[in-house]
Amino acid sequence: MPLLVAFLLAAAPPSAGPPVRLSPDSTLRARVAAWRAAHEAEVFREYVELLRLPNLASDSTNIRRNAAAVLQMLERRGVRAELLEAPGSPPAVFGELAVPGATRTVVLYAHYDGQPVDTARWVSPPWQPVLRDRALFAGGREIPFPAAGERFDPEWRLYARSTGDDKGSIIAQLSALDALGALGLRPTVNLKFFYEGEEEAGSTHLRDMLTRHAAALKADVWLMGDGPVHQTRRQQLSFGVRGDMGLQLTVYGPARPLHSGHYGNWAPNPDVMLVRLLASLRDEEGRILIPHYYDEVRPIGAAERKALATLPPVEEQLKGELRLGRSEGAPGTLGERILLPAINLSGLSGGRTGSTAANVIVPEATAFLDLRMVPDQRPERVQALILEHLRSQGFFVVTSDPDSTTRRAHPKVIKAVFSPGYPASRASLDEPAVRAVIAAVQQDLSEPLITLPSSGGSDGTYVFHEVLGVPQIGVPISNHDNNQHAENENMRLQNLWDGIGLYAGLMARLGPAWKGVEAGKPMP
Amino acid sequence: MPLLVAFLLAAAPPSAGPPVRLSPDSTLRARVAAWRAAHEAEVFREYVELLRLPNLASDSTNIRRNAAAVLQMLERRGVRAELLEAPGSPPAVFGELAVPGATRTVVLYAHYDGQPVDTARWVSPPWQPVLRDRALFAGGREIPFPAAGERFDPEWRLYARSTGDDKGSIIAQLSALDALGALGLRPTVNLKFFYEGEEEAGSTHLRDMLTRHAAALKADVWLMGDGPVHQTRRQQLSFGVRGDMGLQLTVYGPARPLHSGHYGNWAPNPDVMLVRLLASLRDEEGRILIPHYYDEVRPIGAAERKALATLPPVEEQLKGELRLGRSEGAPGTLGERILLPAINLSGLSGGRTGSTAANVIVPEATAFLDLRMVPDQRPERVQALILEHLRSQGFFVVTSDPDSTTRRAHPKVIKAVFSPGYPASRASLDEPAVRAVIAAVQQDLSEPLITLPSSGGSDGTYVFHEVLGVPQIGVPISNHDNNQHAENENMRLQNLWDGIGLYAGLMARLGPAWKGVEAGKPMP
Repeated sequence: MPLLVAFLLAAAPPSAGPPVRLSPDSTLRARVAAWRAAHEAEVFREYVELLRLPNLASDSTNIRRNAAAVLQMLERRGVRAELLEAPGSPPAVFGELAVPGATRTVVLYAHYDGQPVDTARWVSPPWQPVLRDRALFAGGREIPFPAAGERFDPEWRLYARSTGDDKGSIIAQLSALDALGALGLRPTVNLKFFYEGEEEAGSTHLRDMLTRHAAALKADVWLMGDGPVHQTRRQQLSFGVRGDMGLQLTVYGPARPLHSGHYGNWAPNPDVMLVRLLASLRDEEGRILIPHYYDEVRPIGAAERKALATLPPVEEQLKGELRLGRSEGAPGTLGERILLPAINLSGLSGGRTGSTAANVIVPEATAFLDLRMVPDQRPERVQALILEHLRSQGFFVVTSDPDSTTRRAHPKVIKAVFSPGYPASRASLDEPAVRAVIAAVQQDLSEPLITLPSSGGSDGTYVFHEVLGVPQIGVPISNHDNNQHAENENMRLQNLWDGIGLYAGLMARLGPAWKGVEAGKPMP
Repeated sequence: MPLLVAFLLAAAPPSAGPPVRLSPDSTLRARVAAWRAAHEAEVFREYVELLRLPNLASDSTNIRRNAAAVLQMLERRGVRAELLEAPGSPPAVFGELAVPGATRTVVLYAHYDGQPVDTARWVSPPWQPVLRDRALFAGGREIPFPAAGERFDPEWRLYARSTGDDKGSIIAQLSALDALGALGLRPTVNLKFFYEGEEEAGSTHLRDMLTRHAAALKADVWLMGDGPVHQTRRQQLSFGVRGDMGLQLTVYGPARPLHSGHYGNWAPNPDVMLVRLLASLRDEEGRILIPHYYDEVRPIGAAERKALATLPPVEEQLKGELRLGRSEGAPGTLGERILLPAINLSGLSGGRTGSTAANVIVPEATAFLDLRMVPDQRPERVQALILEHLRSQGFFVVTSDPDSTTRRAHPKVIKAVFSPGYPASRASLDEPAVRAVIAAVQQDLSEPLITLPSSGGSDGTYVFHEVLGVPQIGVPISNHDNNQHAENENMRLQNLWDGIGLYAGLMARLGPAWKGVEAGKPMP
C-alpha cells in the first residue's frame, strides 16, 4: 500500500472528501484551528507523554525510549519510520512520507533530546509536566490538566524540559499532519522527518550521521523546528546563524609579581601589553581593525536588506531595558549588525581590582574573546589573520605556556589558544526554496512575516549545509520567553496551537508556492 | 649642666682625653669597629631587650612601653629626652644633644613601631628574638646567645619583628654615640632624635605631630634610618621617594550580561571601551600619553645623573631572574626609570577567562591603576589631567555607581575613584646638606657610596618636607634580604656593626664636611 494512501486511510475522518489543492485565498489556517480546537486534549496528551521521558543525550537508556516513542508517533500516522544510527550516537528518528505528484522534498527537523537540568532550580521537576495558568515570572500557579471536554486557555503554559526546545516542534509538525488528514487535505511536497537525539550535547556525531544516511536524507530544503518566535510573538523565519570560535590570549610579564613602585616603568607590564593589543583588534563601534578581516565577508545583499525591513524595531526598547546610552555601529539596527562579523571581548583578567587591589606588576594577563563569523569567512583563515596581526604587533606567538628560554628570548610573548570553531551558515534569500517557504508562510498570516537573514547566535547548521548542500530555514514556534536551556522551560499553549497551523500551512502550500516562485510570480 | 658635658661624663670612659676633631684621613671607622668588637654583647643585649617589646602601633599599652624604653635609652646616654604627643597618636620619642660650637643640626630618624604580624607564618614568635647561624632561606639554625666573652659571627642573623625595620637603626644610632664617647670624640653637629611610633600604621598623625612640635624639631637635615642597603650589600644613601595615588576605573555596558552572539557588535562592550581607554593612557615603554602629564615633572639634573652612575648595574641579572626579554624604556636603567612618573596597570577584571569563560557581553569592566609621581607633580593636578583625558575620550565621568538615568543619558559612562594620594619627595642633590652627608659617608668607605636619587617606592616623606622644609636623606643599615614587612624579619649582624660605624662617622664628620662643601671644596 502506497504510504500516502495508508496515511489518508489512517488519519482522515471517513467523511472527508477527495484531497484538494488549496487556493492562496482559502481559509486553511481557520480550518486547521477549528480542527485543533476540537482536538486540543489529544494533542496535549501526546505532548505530555513525550515530555515525561527524561531526554538527556548522555542517558542512553532513556534517550532510546524517547526515540522509540517518536518512532511510534510517526508510524501511528502512517509515516514509514526508522531509527538512523551512527556509532556512539543516540539514534536519529527518520520518517518519510511520499506524496504522489509532488516534485519537491522537505525535511522537517527537530531534536528530541534536551538541555541538562539543574533540578534544584526547577519549581516543578523537569520531566513531570505541570500546567500553569500563566508564566511563572508573572505569578503563574499550577492548575490541573483539564477534564474531558473542558477548553484550554491559550495563555496557559506547560512546564517541562523540552516543551519548547524541541519536543513542542515535533508535536506541532505531527499534529499538522493529523489536521491536514482530518480536513481531507494532503501535503503538496514529499515530507521527510529527521529528529536528532544529541543536539544539546553538541551534535558530535551529526556529520557522521548525515554522511552515512545522505541518500535517505536527500531533499530540497530543511525546515528547522528549533528556537523561539520573535519577541513581539509574531511569526519569524530565520535563514542562518553566525559561526563562532573562541580565542584565549595570555601575555607575559615578570616571572613573579613585582612591587609597582620599585619596578614600575622598568619591568614590562603584561596588562598594558594586553590592553594595547586588544585595542588594536577592534574599535568601539564593532569595526574590526585587523587587516583583510573583511575580505571574505559576503556583502549584505538586496534580498537581505528587504528581509531586514520586516524586523520590528526593538532598538529603543532594548536600550531602555539594558540602560544603554548608545549602540555600536548606530544607526545600524540589531538585525543588520548581526549580519557582520564580531570580535567580542568577554573576559579580562590581569590582577585584582576593588578592595583587594594591590600595587603590583602582575606576571600575566589574559583575555577571552569570541569571534562570530558570517558567510563566507573560514575559521582557518580568520585564525591565520589573527596570528599574523599578533605578530605584526611585535608578539612572538606560542600555543602553550612558554618556558623561561622563550620568555627571555623575545621582547613580547603571547599564548594564543583557539577553541574549535565553525563557520556561519546562511541560506541565500534569493534561492527559490527560501522564497517559496516565505511565500507559503506569508499566505496564512494577517501581518507581515518577520524574515531574519541570520540569527546572531551560532549552532551547527553548517554541518547540514556542508554535507547535504541544501538550505536550512529556521521555522520556530516557541514563545521567546520559554526559558530555553534554563530551569522552568515552558510552552505557551497558543504558541503550540499556532505552530500546528504554521506547519499545516507549509505542508499544504509549499508545493504550489514553489512552482509560483519558479514561474516568476512576485513574492507576496 | 650643659647636655654635652652630661653626655661626656656619662658615656666617655674616664681615660678618654679631651674631644678632638677628626681629619678626613683618620682611621675613625677602624677605631669604632674596635670599640664595637669589644662591646658586641652589650649592644646585642640592649637590642634584644628592645625587640622583646611587642610594637604594633594599635597596641597602645605596649607601644608606650616601647616609647618609655627608647626614652630611657636616650637618657642613659645623657641625651635630654621627652615624649612628643599628638592627640590619638602613639608618642614620638624626642631627644636633643647640643654640641658647643656646632652650627648645624641633624635629626636622626627611625620608627620604633613594627608591621603587623601573621604569627602562623613565623618560624619563631615575632617578639621572641632568636639568633640563627645564617639566613633561614639558607638553612639557618637557631643558636644560643653567646656566653660572656664569646665572639659574635658577623654572618649570624637575629630574627624578630623590627630587627631591621627600624629598631636596628635606633640601636646603631645610639651605639654610635656610645662609641664616639668611648673614643673621646664628640659629634660635630647638634643632634636631635625623632623616633616615630606609628609609621607602619600609615603615620596618620605625623603631620599634626610635626606641626605641633616644629620648634623642637628645627634642624638642617634629617637622616632617616629606614629601609635596606643595596642588594650588593654596599652602602647606599637615597634622597627621595616617588609619590603615589590609586585609581579605579569602571566602564559600563548593558545592565545584565548579554549573549555575545545575539547582541555582539550591537550592544556596547565595556571590556572594549576599557581596553581602548587604558591603551590611550600610556605606551609599552612606560611613556604616558595624557596631554600635559609631564609638564610639572622636574627634569633629571646633572647631579642626579652623576648619582645614577654610582648604581651597580642590576638590569641583566634582574631580566634573567624575572624571565624578561626586554625592559621598558631601554636602554634606561632601573635607577633612571624610577625617576620618572609611572602609570602602572595592576588590576583588570571584566568577565571570566580560562575554563569558566563564557560568550557574554559583560555589564561592566574594571581596572586598577597606581600612579607613581615624581617632583614636582601635584596629585590634584594629576587627577585633573586624568579626568580631562577621560572626558576627551568621550566618557561622562562619575565618582559613584551611575543610576539608570545617567547610563541612559550618556554614550559612555566611567566611574573614576582616586584613592588618597600624596606627592613625591626628593632632596636636591645640589643642596649643601645633601652634598655634606654624601661627603661624610664616603670618607669612611673603601668603595664608592651608592647614591640613589630616588627610590621607586613611596612613603610619607613628603610630610616632613612640607611641614619642616628641610631635606630628608635615607641612611639605611639593614640587609636587603631582611624580610622587612613579612614574617621572619631579621638583621644580619654585620649590617648592624656597619650601621654603628656609619652613624658614628656621620656624627663625627658631618660638621667639617658641611663646612667644606660651603667653602667650595670638591666632592670626594
